Amino acid sequence: MIFYLLHTEGDLHMTIPIAERMSRIGTETAFAVSLEASQLAKQGKKIYPFHLGDMNIITPPEVMEAAIEAMKKGKTGYSPTAGIPELREALAKEVAAARRLNLTADNVSIQPGGKPTIGKFIMVAMNPGDKVLYPNPGYPIYESQVEFHGGVGVPYGYKEGRDGFILDLETIRKGIGAGAKILIYNNYQNPTGASSPKEEMEELARLAVQNDLFVLSDEAYFDIRYSGEPMSIASLPGMAERTVILYTFSKKFAMTGWRLGAAVGPAKFIEHISKINVNDESCSNHFIQYGALAGLQGNQAGPESIIATLKKRRDLMVEKLNAIPGIKCFKPEATFYLFPNVTGALQRQGVKDIEKFRQHCLQETGVSFCTRRHFGRPLPGEEEQYVRFAYSGIDVPQIQEGLDKFSKFLT
Amino acid sequence: MIFYLLHTEGDLHMTIPIAERMSRIGTETAFAVSLEASQLAKQGKKIYPFHLGDMNIITPPEVMEAAIEAMKKGKTGYSPTAGIPELREALAKEVAAARRLNLTADNVSIQPGGKPTIGKFIMVAMNPGDKVLYPNPGYPIYESQVEFHGGVGVPYGYKEGRDGFILDLETIRKGIGAGAKILIYNNYQNPTGASSPKEEMEELARLAVQNDLFVLSDEAYFDIRYSGEPMSIASLPGMAERTVILYTFSKKFAMTGWRLGAAVGPAKFIEHISKINVNDESCSNHFIQYGALAGLQGNQAGPESIIATLKKRRDLMVEKLNAIPGIKCFKPEATFYLFPNVTGALQRQGVKDIEKFRQHCLQETGVSFCTRRHFGRPLPGEEEQYVRFAYSGIDVPQIQEGLDKFSKFLT
Repeated sequence: MIFYLLHTEGDLHMTIPIAERMSRIGTETAFAVSLEASQLAKQGKKIYPFHLGDMNIITPPEVMEAAIEAMKKGKTGYSPTAGIPELREALAKEVAAARRLNLTADNVSIQPGGKPTIGKFIMVAMNPGDKVLYPNPGYPIYESQVEFHGGVGVPYGYKEGRDGFILDLETIRKGIGAGAKILIYNNYQNPTGASSPKEEMEELARLAVQNDLFVLSDEAYFDIRYSGEPMSIASLPGMAERTVILYTFSKKFAMTGWRLGAAVGPAKFIEHISKINVNDESCSNHFIQYGALAGLQGNQAGPESIIATLKKRRDLMVEKLNAIPGIKCFKPEATFYLFPNVTGALQRQGVKDIEKFRQHCLQETGVSFCTRRHFGRPLPGEEEQYVRFAYSGIDVPQIQEGLDKFSKFLT
Repeated sequence: MIFYLLHTEGDLHMTIPIAERMSRIGTETAFAVSLEASQLAKQGKKIYPFHLGDMNIITPPEVMEAAIEAMKKGKTGYSPTAGIPELREALAKEVAAARRLNLTADNVSIQPGGKPTIGKFIMVAMNPGDKVLYPNPGYPIYESQVEFHGGVGVPYGYKEGRDGFILDLETIRKGIGAGAKILIYNNYQNPTGASSPKEEMEELARLAVQNDLFVLSDEAYFDIRYSGEPMSIASLPGMAERTVILYTFSKKFAMTGWRLGAAVGPAKFIEHISKINVNDESCSNHFIQYGALAGLQGNQAGPESIIATLKKRRDLMVEKLNAIPGIKCFKPEATFYLFPNVTGALQRQGVKDIEKFRQHCLQETGVSFCTRRHFGRPLPGEEEQYVRFAYSGIDVPQIQEGLDKFSKFLT
């Protein structure tokens, strides 16, 4: 145990106990970028917020109205711990239809956000010492939760393909060889924007079945899609029984701050997730579940308008970024992230450190973004430099203005 | 690892991994009573729901209106992980004034309910193998979270005093002697309704300071009070630095299903709690925090009306229960629970098992309540029999009718 010794009175000691596991918890280091940006803004600097994963788009009115109606009707008491039956059923239907699966309400446990599924999945599936494959670059909470609960994180990488980032399957095979039995897979990926081609996903599923891996498929961006057809690894042969899907209402319905999502998977496993609900928070907010239900059952004008807004931003950004010398940017079919290769831009600036590059750009232009380092420690042999631009929290005129300054600065 | 072997295809095995810690998680066994009651209700039996800890009182309108306004103004994106600054400040002020403490926003981490503070407190303070004192009878989630995260639960008891239940300090001293360094204390207690007399709380604080205990003070029912002055152990000498208060909006503002509460304590410790927020759920729902803020800053007509409603129920119930031969019931100053001694009633019925007594009463009269067993395994030497009646979810006419049937059945 680590002690923080505060004071001593006579022979009485005052200690605040902080458990050893707290030395293994991580955070979202991107918050530090937010802080820097907001401090500059306070000094009067105009900031272009490409670092945010939050959305500046308002929740569709049908969702709001249904939530308000439920609140006023007195849905202010506890909800069942796994969610109201109507929402579990509707979500089972929705996820099953979009992914070609057979699901019932028993396969669904409603959560206060998408994120809770990560920690709960790990607590249910992973023993201390177990090895867990997770993407790097990737959402930093995977590694944090694995290590917090005593597991061993085994990172796997991405590399540049023809049209976008692809899995570095070699690093996954190596992790399996080293004994990993759990795989975290985030297709439509944060931060790279990667969409697995069909063959890649099939190969990954084969590896999972052959090696008896259990899978968390983080599908937070499944519905944030501009072209092509989405696909879930759970729909491939032998996978439905070994996959838990992280679902969230946050992106599709611009509900990030409502905190509503779900774990969707084998009923036996989902039952255990719900046992943790009983212990951790009893249930998710009751009346907002009726809002989400209205969202699922509504005419989808809300989600369509969100996609249309995001698509305009993406198209403009990819065009403008690729026009900057030393920057190469893929055009992802899904997510609201871009992960441009900026190796050339760093060379032109004579800067080696990506973090210095980021700070320099922020201070000189107000253009604020994250770098590859906010998504994990670089893997051995990684030489190219990347940054992440999010376009969920910034409108077209600001994108235009910000990237013009950025381009001028780098040219 | 415990494996659930689902099927074997050729030589491919399909296993769902369930980690060892899942064999140590508990639940609220009272849910089983709810299920029984609702099954009887479906068969047409009239049920008097005294088993519920939920409230059938609606949230005050000023809370609803402020939440709706915030939602419509677009407070639908993420909130800061520890809560909006306005609410943290207002709650610091409120808790400090009601308990005579010095607090700022840094002492407050907003949570999605009161319950999350239990698990997070334990994860921050307790290492595997650490011994934790917890009340028994008591809220079953304490023991569950302690054991889930690898600790050793050390139960302490209550006994009948002159005007209500009092701590069995001997069992606490024993636990300290056995090496417990963490104490969970739930004054204004579920299920006994106990309020520590001043001298008792002072003795407990002395034990905590002398033995360097770190304390979780679950004060969920601090504001559900019908007479006398509330008091927090955190306000006693040497205690503020070693106490984390569990605060909830659930009871005072009839917001059980909104899921909003807080951990309030030493800033260094609270910082760690907020680190877990980042990992577990990012933040609590954004717009409902404005509802809670309006509740704290409003004219308190809402909470006063809730107390007036509950007081009428309490007075009627205590009177009616004490009129039944073989039942002895204290009149608690706080909480919405009664914990009558029913030893005599069992003897009159010729029943030895409290669970059989409960089922018998439910089937014959529709009066549904929990027993002492739903709040932990009886301690050695415990001979009296108790049941728990909650009156948060049932109106005066139903109380009247239900307890009349109950009385008739037992007389």
